Amino acid sequence: NMIKVAVVGGEGIGPEVTAQSQRVLNWFAAKRGVPMALREAQYGIIPYLATGKVMPPDTVEAMEEADAILWGATGGPETKEVPAAARKAGSLLGLRSKYDLYANLRPIVAHPALADSTPLKASVLRDVDFVIIRELTSGIYFGEPRGIETLADGQRRGFNTEQYTTDQVRRVARSAFELARTRRNKVCSVDKANVLETSVVWREEVIALHAAEFSDVELTHMYVDNAAMQIVREPAQFDVMVTGNIFGDILSDCAAMASGSLGMLPSASLGPVDKFGRRKALYEPVHGSAPDIAGRGIANPLGSILSVAMMLRMTMNRPEDADLLEKAVAGALSGGARTADIAEAGAKRLSTQEMGDAVLNALEKV
Amino acid sequence: NMIKVAVVGGEGIGPEVTAQSQRVLNWFAAKRGVPMALREAQYGIIPYLATGKVMPPDTVEAMEEADAILWGATGGPETKEVPAAARKAGSLLGLRSKYDLYANLRPIVAHPALADSTPLKASVLRDVDFVIIRELTSGIYFGEPRGIETLADGQRRGFNTEQYTTDQVRRVARSAFELARTRRNKVCSVDKANVLETSVVWREEVIALHAAEFSDVELTHMYVDNAAMQIVREPAQFDVMVTGNIFGDILSDCAAMASGSLGMLPSASLGPVDKFGRRKALYEPVHGSAPDIAGRGIANPLGSILSVAMMLRMTMNRPEDADLLEKAVAGALSGGARTADIAEAGAKRLSTQEMGDAVLNALEKV
Ligand SMILES: CC(C)[C@H](C(=O)O)[C@@H](O)C(=O)O
Ligand SMILES: CC(C)[C@H](C(=O)O)[C@@H](O)C(=O)O
Repeated sequence: NMIKVAVVGGEGIGPEVTAQSQRVLNWFAAKRGVPMALREAQYGIIPYLATGKVMPPDTVEAMEEADAILWGATGGPETKEVPAAARKAGSLLGLRSKYDLYANLRPIVAHPALADSTPLKASVLRDVDFVIIRELTSGIYFGEPRGIETLADGQRRGFNTEQYTTDQVRRVARSAFELARTRRNKVCSVDKANVLETSVVWREEVIALHAAEFSDVELTHMYVDNAAMQIVREPAQFDVMVTGNIFGDILSDCAAMASGSLGMLPSASLGPVDKFGRRKALYEPVHGSAPDIAGRGIANPLGSILSVAMMLRMTMNRPEDADLLEKAVAGALSGGARTADIAEAGAKRLSTQEMGDAVLNALEKV
Repeated sequence: NMIKVAVVGGEGIGPEVTAQSQRVLNWFAAKRGVPMALREAQYGIIPYLATGKVMPPDTVEAMEEADAILWGATGGPETKEVPAAARKAGSLLGLRSKYDLYANLRPIVAHPALADSTPLKASVLRDVDFVIIRELTSGIYFGEPRGIETLADGQRRGFNTEQYTTDQVRRVARSAFELARTRRNKVCSVDKANVLETSVVWREEVIALHAAEFSDVELTHMYVDNAAMQIVREPAQFDVMVTGNIFGDILSDCAAMASGSLGMLPSASLGPVDKFGRRKALYEPVHGSAPDIAGRGIANPLGSILSVAMMLRMTMNRPEDADLLEKAVAGALSGGARTADIAEAGAKRLSTQEMGDAVLNALEKV
């Protein structure tokens, strides 16, 4: 029962932040005896130049056999050198789809030590601790038909299809209800059922599943426009929010600032449970490849490191170790450790590596 | 050249707030000689009970002949008594579509006097003054095919079509560029072109129009998820933002809190310019019918009153009078006038009518 982890740093700041979270993983293997086998693999321009593929066979194999994938970021400054077709063949969207990673968990936690670096007032940040579960393999991201056509009068028309089926809604809603039971037992389902038929099905299926199996969980519904406002107005009201692919994409970024920086945010993307009880999962920071700061060693690794905490909790079944790591991050922050994105004017700015050190030091102490 | 205004309070708090903005309109007619003819008309449950139509012929006629419609809100607590079909026949979405009100302007202004009642820090609110232009008659709100179907395996599937054509993008982008020229000359176009073909067309058409006719305006592009974050992180960076129907719906609510309350926000929805140079416009507060407080006389009328300022500027071509009204609102606020939604604990709360008085008093003074 070694847990297999594929470590794929990818492009831009991906490899830099992943190097730090890999150190953290190694610490848990060495010091806490968490049974894991790490396998590093490449993604992006480097394997592309060598093999013509952004995702070469070795990487595919590593991910195939993995229980968990620790993913960095895609889309570096070198992106333009890779033809669109070659890139698409190994894209993040393709990966989500291939492994059917339908439940994307994005926790939003306000770190008291970072209150000064957020745009929100301290009173608003109090007790902010919720999880957005975004459906990740359907909706308008994958709906067919889609494309660009030329009309009779010479105009162009771009079109996409938003869609959800009963099963697609219910399985992600199930993840939300189950997660809520381990937390404050509240689910808020977000849709636009006053306008979209897709959302009517979404809402009705969430209600039906709730009535059938989860009536102990408090369920509310919110329109997506109102949800965007409530996330700014009073984010502490939420426990678990569940929504579709594009709404979740927007709302999770809208909520990001409560954490002080996009660089702070972890995520987990979970697939279906297979017949052996295994559930493929991809863990990645919410931030992207940040080409503007790539290669400078100043990126914030905490989004990636906190993704390791999610891995400990969800794939490795080590909740105490996950708590330990989250406490270590909080400890490093309250000890004053700051990368540039969360530093106030005049404060000392740690490098990516130094922030990794700060977390490892804090781990030794908690 | 009397300007014809249809005044339709509608449902919930709509009639209450509209009564105050109508007083303001009357003030401009009487004291500033703005040539206007107001015609009141009913919408909602009351005409439905009398005529079987939420939008009876008299109301249709009033709106038909109007240059500007001052709209309150739809969807009162009594909504359930009106069958869905009857309601749909005279809905707000139907109205937008009927008059082709494609450019929906939603200004976001941080009122310094209200800094304490927003969730954002004063430093973030400084200089926030931008306009979101939301495309209002196309996109996923109106795209076909749409519906709910039953699949072979018994599952249901809800589906909607997101779509934009060349002309639909260009005309709303034109509104944005033209508005920017009267302001700080910056347009940010928001899309999801890294995922959606609809957004690819959107972006390319915006770029083409810009190159052909508006290259003096600064144009930037942002993905919608990033835009949601930037609106919270640093709203002062924006001047004019232009985006599609559903993205604009979400982003304008996400931005609402910078103004202190949804109750503060005005909007204008503009149709095409006809061969006589006229442009049908509908002015309405962004808030809805607020059934929970309807009938209590405590709603904030400033969203509706500031919509009158937009009407003065855009339909009546009276920019000085629009400025006057906006100054009067600012004056009332800095004089301490507060309805419940923007009052701090312990502060005196004005009724809807008293807030109307406060604005009229301030108008006499500026
Ligand atoms: C890069 C992009 C395709 C992606 C998405 O929209 O899903 C990103 O914004 C995210 O949220 O993971
Ligand atoms: C009531 C609803 C249909 C409407 C919309 O989504 O357009 C509202 O949210 C708005 O923003 O005007």
